[in-house]
Amino acid sequence: MENNRLLITLFGSTGDLASRKLYPAIYRLYKYGHISKHFALVGTGRSQWNDEKLRAVVLDSIENEIDEKEHAEEFVSHFYYLIHDVNKKNDYSKLKHLADELDQKYTIEGNRIYYISLAPRLFPIITGNLKDQNVLTTNGFNRLIIEKPFGHDQASARELQDQLEESFEEDQIYRIDHYLGKYIVQNIQALRFNNPVFANIWNNQHIEQIQITLNEEVGVEDRAEYYDTSGVLRDMIQNHMLQLVSLLTMNKPENFNSKEIHQNKIDLLSHIHQYQDGQELKDNTVFGQYGSDDNQTVTAYRDEKGIAEDSMTPTYFAAKLTIDLEQWQGVPIYIRSGKRMANKATNIYVTFKDDTCDWMNHLLIEIAPRQGYQLYINHKNKAYASHLESVPLSYYLNEEEERKLPGDYERLIFECILGKRENFAHYDEVEASWNFIDHIFEVAENIQPPTFPNYVSYSQGPKEADDLLKKDGHHWLSD
Amino acid sequence: MENNRLLITLFGSTGDLASRKLYPAIYRLYKYGHISKHFALVGTGRSQWNDEKLRAVVLDSIENEIDEKEHAEEFVSHFYYLIHDVNKKNDYSKLKHLADELDQKYTIEGNRIYYISLAPRLFPIITGNLKDQNVLTTNGFNRLIIEKPFGHDQASARELQDQLEESFEEDQIYRIDHYLGKYIVQNIQALRFNNPVFANIWNNQHIEQIQITLNEEVGVEDRAEYYDTSGVLRDMIQNHMLQLVSLLTMNKPENFNSKEIHQNKIDLLSHIHQYQDGQELKDNTVFGQYGSDDNQTVTAYRDEKGIAEDSMTPTYFAAKLTIDLEQWQGVPIYIRSGKRMANKATNIYVTFKDDTCDWMNHLLIEIAPRQGYQLYINHKNKAYASHLESVPLSYYLNEEEERKLPGDYERLIFECILGKRENFAHYDEVEASWNFIDHIFEVAENIQPPTFPNYVSYSQGPKEADDLLKKDGHHWLSD
Repeated sequence: MENNRLLITLFGSTGDLASRKLYPAIYRLYKYGHISKHFALVGTGRSQWNDEKLRAVVLDSIENEIDEKEHAEEFVSHFYYLIHDVNKKNDYSKLKHLADELDQKYTIEGNRIYYISLAPRLFPIITGNLKDQNVLTTNGFNRLIIEKPFGHDQASARELQDQLEESFEEDQIYRIDHYLGKYIVQNIQALRFNNPVFANIWNNQHIEQIQITLNEEVGVEDRAEYYDTSGVLRDMIQNHMLQLVSLLTMNKPENFNSKEIHQNKIDLLSHIHQYQDGQELKDNTVFGQYGSDDNQTVTAYRDEKGIAEDSMTPTYFAAKLTIDLEQWQGVPIYIRSGKRMANKATNIYVTFKDDTCDWMNHLLIEIAPRQGYQLYINHKNKAYASHLESVPLSYYLNEEEERKLPGDYERLIFECILGKRENFAHYDEVEASWNFIDHIFEVAENIQPPTFPNYVSYSQGPKEADDLLKKDGHHWLSD
Repeated sequence: MENNRLLITLFGSTGDLASRKLYPAIYRLYKYGHISKHFALVGTGRSQWNDEKLRAVVLDSIENEIDEKEHAEEFVSHFYYLIHDVNKKNDYSKLKHLADELDQKYTIEGNRIYYISLAPRLFPIITGNLKDQNVLTTNGFNRLIIEKPFGHDQASARELQDQLEESFEEDQIYRIDHYLGKYIVQNIQALRFNNPVFANIWNNQHIEQIQITLNEEVGVEDRAEYYDTSGVLRDMIQNHMLQLVSLLTMNKPENFNSKEIHQNKIDLLSHIHQYQDGQELKDNTVFGQYGSDDNQTVTAYRDEKGIAEDSMTPTYFAAKLTIDLEQWQGVPIYIRSGKRMANKATNIYVTFKDDTCDWMNHLLIEIAPRQGYQLYINHKNKAYASHLESVPLSYYLNEEEERKLPGDYERLIFECILGKRENFAHYDEVEASWNFIDHIFEVAENIQPPTFPNYVSYSQGPKEADDLLKKDGHHWLSD
């Protein structure tokens, strides 16, 4: 068991994400001994809370994780609340003072994680002040964790990055894409590179197609303001989807360190084929926006609270991607993501098919709702073994294993503590992804906009997404 | 549904195999409509039975398979009993007369299967008389089904074959090796050739080793007389084991017809490396014979009824095989088979390991006690995804599927009806297998015989079998 020395400063400690995700994650790290006596957390916010209030909130948020009440109380005794306005320089002196005091008290030796769980426009204000007001330490590490969105497009991402870099180096910045904290997502590399059965055929000679589905059953919920300015391309494709694409197709790193992994992902993301013109875009993509259901019992996107009645924001996107690299020539990657779909489904299908045999194998990598893998193999059917049928070899986590599994945030915070950066998006990945997305929007301006809404809630999305694959003789393999 | 025209003449209809295996198998073929109104069976024997008696025995034997009593009674009405001495020419005239009468009655059009479920020494007597007394038809097919043993060595197999060939051509002879009727065994070819994930790596570049285990928990039971003259090499290795070896390593047939499949298996069996001298035999094989258990509560082999007290018959054999073909250079095939082992286990492990990755994958093909496949893959463990662990992707038949599955004999008799010969051993396979076995016995004469008994009942066999693999850095993967 490690006992890492660590002071976390959490900007936004009174917020929803903190209670839902961060406190339970940090508590589990404490429970399993990865942090203990040399640990403290300063929560900041504008609310008139105090230590007691914060500790009560934390205790409440970790309720389901508590094995031993005493231990949980000991845990929250390491939590301190500071009333803090991110715009006030003076408040950073207070922060510095409290942080240094706690550093002394818990013998933390200067290791600091600054976790900003606030609106992105506040990121540079906070980082600038952390530097200018000398909150950053010189004896330990200073790491910054920020949450998406990382910009709204390439230009704004670049601007944000330039501002952040005035205070933090790129290798101190940990951008959380919580998909990269998911257990099954973290296993894509292991599947590809640590299994001879797959390692040998993970290339365009043997892979016929890849499909990625990130479907949600929920609609826009209470995120209308943010969502209507971003849509599915900025909310899901630029980050989660393209990260999955890069994990599935990046070259094998020689040494599997963060630097190489980042470099190989960046190389890949920079080579996703950009649609050259309106026709190519139309041929390869489908935009959608959800309407009501057949009985008009649920709210259409344009009728959601906070959404303009003529909103052209897409809530669904499907596309055929190709990679402009020789090793991926001829392999289509079909992606789709939508809200208000028939099922929640986060999964990847890789289809192996080659000249050695007339049959194909599908590898299903299932991220949600279940977590596991299925390899569909062909064998003779059970009657008199004259016909072939496809059956799945399966591995799924059972309920007990799912319960025990570290959460996405827990895993990522732990990796940040260890300084393992590979499961955080490097800025150059972010930029390459924005370039791809920006280009779609640019080209889209030259074509007739789609007619929205174009799919009913709780359906499989626009029928054009089926046609997209049918043209190539494929169909969506996931429900 | 086919409705095949067929008269089966069953020599040995009063015997144990007929009741245990053949009648249920034939009933299921009837139940599922593969044979129905154009079908009859003549059972012969020396016992003073009659049609009624035979039908009662058959009804009794199929008890567990009956869905509908009326249908079962209709089925047995197609059964006829003939008192018949295989040595009496005149009895074949009676047989011919009855067969022709039934052929007429059921409009069978001359299709005949002669199933000899009697001692092998009677095979040529029966086949000779079938020809000489003109029992064979000229309008339909005449097929002969015989059960192992096919000879005691190459010379006796050759002699038997020469005798059979006086009446039947090789392509009319169906030698039942019931392992070749097993569902999972029949699927070895499908696994290898109809799945790109395996087809691409089923060679010595990617396969590190193959292991085959055919372990029985039972001892010699009531087969002492036969068993003590044959032992495990003649009872299990020459037939079942070498058939599995050939299915696992034969070249891919271009057209998958019986002729090509037989040819490729023959090619393979003729290239199993023969141990050149006593030293090579000692280095690569382990002979065993079971003793009692640790508490002396079960009978040692030499104390079994009908076994000589100084018997040197092996009840266990393990060996490292290699194939003298370039495509299998460097791939050891470890085989073992024993009686009175800790568990009944019939399975195959294929280990994939190559230069592309430091890790290996094991494919388990399980024939018994469960029926299915497991592919062990490596993925990151569930704690914080830092270490790899091996987990199985699994497919097993469930109980319902196992219950419905055609039995070994049902499958093979059905294939014989269809004239599909690939799952019956060709004579040249039999001969190639005997050559391998004969050679072992020849070379063994030059070395010190082992000390028997050398393993206790219900154990994992002689410890030397573990050492055999340890030398190569391997261990037995099956329990």
